[in-house]
Amino acid sequence: MRTRLGDLVESLGGELIGDPDLAVIGVAPLDAATASHITFLSNPKLRTQAAATRAGALVLSASDHQLISQGYRGVCVITTNPYAWFARAAQFFAARDTEPVAPGIHPSAIVHASAQIDSASSVGPQVTIEAGAVIGEHCVIGAGSFIGRGSRIGAYTLFYPRVTFLSACEIGARVIVHSGAVIGADGFGFAADQGHWIKISQTGRVRIGDDVEIGANTTIDRGALEDTVIEEGVKLDNQIQIAHNCVIGAHTAMAGCVGVAGSAKIGRHCTFGGAAMVLGHLSIADHVHVSSGSLVSRSISEPGQYTGFYPLARNADWEKTAAVVRQLDTMRDRVRELEKLVRQLTAKHE
Amino acid sequence: MRTRLGDLVESLGGELIGDPDLAVIGVAPLDAATASHITFLSNPKLRTQAAATRAGALVLSASDHQLISQGYRGVCVITTNPYAWFARAAQFFAARDTEPVAPGIHPSAIVHASAQIDSASSVGPQVTIEAGAVIGEHCVIGAGSFIGRGSRIGAYTLFYPRVTFLSACEIGARVIVHSGAVIGADGFGFAADQGHWIKISQTGRVRIGDDVEIGANTTIDRGALEDTVIEEGVKLDNQIQIAHNCVIGAHTAMAGCVGVAGSAKIGRHCTFGGAAMVLGHLSIADHVHVSSGSLVSRSISEPGQYTGFYPLARNADWEKTAAVVRQLDTMRDRVRELEKLVRQLTAKHE
Amino acid sequence: MRTRLGDLVESLGGELIGDPDLAVIGVAPLDAATASHITFLSNPKLRTQAAATRAGALVLSASDHQLISQGYRGVCVITTNPYAWFARAAQFFAARDTEPVAPGIHPSAIVHASAQIDSASSVGPQVTIEAGAVIGEHCVIGAGSFIGRGSRIGAYTLFYPRVTFLSACEIGARVIVHSGAVIGADGFGFAADQGHWIKISQTGRVRIGDDVEIGANTTIDRGALEDTVIEEGVKLDNQIQIAHNCVIGAHTAMAGCVGVAGSAKIGRHCTFGGAAMVLGHLSIADHVHVSSGSLVSRSISEPGQYTGFYPLARNADWEKTAAVVRQLDTMRDRVRELEKLVRQLTAKHE
Repeated sequence: MRTRLGDLVESLGGELIGDPDLAVIGVAPLDAATASHITFLSNPKLRTQAAATRAGALVLSASDHQLISQGYRGVCVITTNPYAWFARAAQFFAARDTEPVAPGIHPSAIVHASAQIDSASSVGPQVTIEAGAVIGEHCVIGAGSFIGRGSRIGAYTLFYPRVTFLSACEIGARVIVHSGAVIGADGFGFAADQGHWIKISQTGRVRIGDDVEIGANTTIDRGALEDTVIEEGVKLDNQIQIAHNCVIGAHTAMAGCVGVAGSAKIGRHCTFGGAAMVLGHLSIADHVHVSSGSLVSRSISEPGQYTGFYPLARNADWEKTAAVVRQLDTMRDRVRELEKLVRQLTAKHE
Repeated sequence: MRTRLGDLVESLGGELIGDPDLAVIGVAPLDAATASHITFLSNPKLRTQAAATRAGALVLSASDHQLISQGYRGVCVITTNPYAWFARAAQFFAARDTEPVAPGIHPSAIVHASAQIDSASSVGPQVTIEAGAVIGEHCVIGAGSFIGRGSRIGAYTLFYPRVTFLSACEIGARVIVHSGAVIGADGFGFAADQGHWIKISQTGRVRIGDDVEIGANTTIDRGALEDTVIEEGVKLDNQIQIAHNCVIGAHTAMAGCVGVAGSAKIGRHCTFGGAAMVLGHLSIADHVHVSSGSLVSRSISEPGQYTGFYPLARNADWEKTAAVVRQLDTMRDRVRELEKLVRQLTAKHE
Repeated sequence: MRTRLGDLVESLGGELIGDPDLAVIGVAPLDAATASHITFLSNPKLRTQAAATRAGALVLSASDHQLISQGYRGVCVITTNPYAWFARAAQFFAARDTEPVAPGIHPSAIVHASAQIDSASSVGPQVTIEAGAVIGEHCVIGAGSFIGRGSRIGAYTLFYPRVTFLSACEIGARVIVHSGAVIGADGFGFAADQGHWIKISQTGRVRIGDDVEIGANTTIDRGALEDTVIEEGVKLDNQIQIAHNCVIGAHTAMAGCVGVAGSAKIGRHCTFGGAAMVLGHLSIADHVHVSSGSLVSRSISEPGQYTGFYPLARNADWEKTAAVVRQLDTMRDRVRELEKLVRQLTAKHE
């Protein structure tokens, strides 16, 4: 199926330079695009590649357009944020190519009589929905998912197959939850007593805002007494662990394998690289960016990029530097002693 | 529903100072508690906050009682371990507020005729139970869980929805397993042969003791030839990986995202911070405490706290220190050379 | 059930020294083997233990046979790769002891009319199979698994219970996928736009080759526009995250908790220790070996072993060395200054 480029630009904005009647079938990377594809230029390093693309249409900024218009002969769409334009175009084509899910409850689903499910929503095979759960309009609950007693799900929210959403939790509108995610398991709380652990009952909830995305096999624990909160627009990748009582501020994004320990309060518009870890009871300001593999062991009050991982080396070289790391305080003492001796020698010379 | 504080103290122990007829509805944090709540003081830093709490009852130690009794006017419960008392009180209220699960097997569950399920246990919707499995009394098997051929589950054990418990494994009494956990998958064992991997059949089991708790999406692999063993009272948080043939000693606790490689033997009463990693074939003594984000690359025979993570810094500062780390053996050589030169200079002066 | 050792050697190769009529019941470790077991010697450190084993048969190399034939009196099987021989023998006994799964579709499975399932394959209870899926011969699809629209599964592939295999993905022959694995969830792609994240539709697939093994709760995301590719013979342990557009080269093996960020291209015959992390858009050559807990932050073009983790220490010692790490660039400057001063002093003396 083909779409007239002019219609798409009318819908998504941007300035079209060239033939508005170009018929496009979808989006593609710079090097794979054909005369029927839209591609985009966002990274300045790819200007040469963009100038040579065979794409029928190229989305780019005004300044990049000036720089490469000599080379590229196709239709241009000029916009301030080419990547976002491209993302919206990709969403358009993906929605067009996806068969809509029919509303209704699959006969194999086990739904408690007191659960309220909007008639425009779809509940897949082998789903269990417990008493008092409320599911808003146009939701899709994938096969084999579990929705616990008294939990609430906002409109247009999508659960992929095999999501576990436990009792009394709340999730907003337009949320996407991927397969294997577990939301609302008990937080990890124990009181030590004579060598044994006494469980702290976890009676808080998980509350998740609108427009959140939660990756495959990610876990978000319910609060101990208060709630664990994921604010609107947060994006969590796969295999992430959010412990009890955390607050993740709006529009923060975390890559795969990140862990956040209990009661950490993370600001808005933060980003966390893969496998970054945050210790418990810390506060992290808005607009903090933590590099992959870094452990945040203290609160951060200033925006900026933070890093802490041991640099990779050939194993033989690492063996040598790691041996020195183990002795670094001794080396500092040796440098201090040298400074003292050199000062004395210098003094004798003057 | 209200509970008479005097009755609770009679049940849980402790010395009540004040009105035993105080009616309480639950537990709450220091700053959120009302006149109908019990709260507790355990962390000395919170004494001022405790003195000002509006809680109806405060659980605390005798020494803290002396220090803050001027400020706090409610009922006091004096006990040697306020946090453990509070934990038990929270369990009391949580149990009171939780509707008991009715025994019986949901009609949608698929249970093999040879499986033995105690009549006081509950099997939820869409559970599969294979041949020869044995489930003790008062267990709850949550919706969509899988229990493999010949596996055994002790009394009062709770599986949350969507637990996978594979064939021939054993689990004790009063164990809690959270959603998404996979117990008894194959260990990761291969023999290299001319650039290919030959699978080592994993024919051991997983054996789990009493009073263990296993977090959401945690995985515990079966042994290769022998068994993987989780001793009694062990507490595992979410997203933990325990490889084949490991032994985790009694009452050891591990926070989220910890990984333990194959055949590691971990002592009793240890603790592991989040994302700590233990290499294979190591032995770790009792009462060892490993900090978050630390990799244990050798056996540990002495109790104590162990740490090994790169300190976090602003990215620009990390860039500078990481560049030096890569050259640390050179720097050590330069310091040695300086020491030699300074010794020579000093000698000439004497 | 007993097997004649001579028959086994005839099937698996190797030179038998001793009684071919020895009847064996299985394989066992050196220290647990009885007169009815086969054991093996591969690690030279275990020669003394091997010489003393009570195993009925010992698999070993010709050179080890010469070294320990004085001590060990049982039957020997001489082969160039004792561990691989042992692995194949273990597979033989495991297959003999495992009841074969009967072909057919369990009545509780929900299978779309347009799905094609070979009649020699088995589909377990509570499985969902969507439209257009194709399952080859002799497959086993474990209870509660999900197979999405249009996905394809090769012959003799085994899904343990509760695997999620999403739409349009492909998997080869003789693949083993463990419980909780999620294959084909959306990659993590967003365009930033005025403080919000615009989702990049993930329209690529996951393509998995023959003879791959995928561990419990491991996640492999579908590509954004192109595909995520796992080549033949790759072995992935539990809790691994493979992001969108990655290519994992043939026969590469990754231990538990490894993470690979988007668009990384990893060579053939590589190995990754537990919790190793690879940043996005990197290339890693064939035969690269990354140690546990190491973060790969740049491309690697040379084969070899690479490492980068902070060495573990007693916490008090780590506190001291970490304090110096934070000041390492200052220390380098101090060493440079000392070198200058010492050169000046030396010059004055000459």
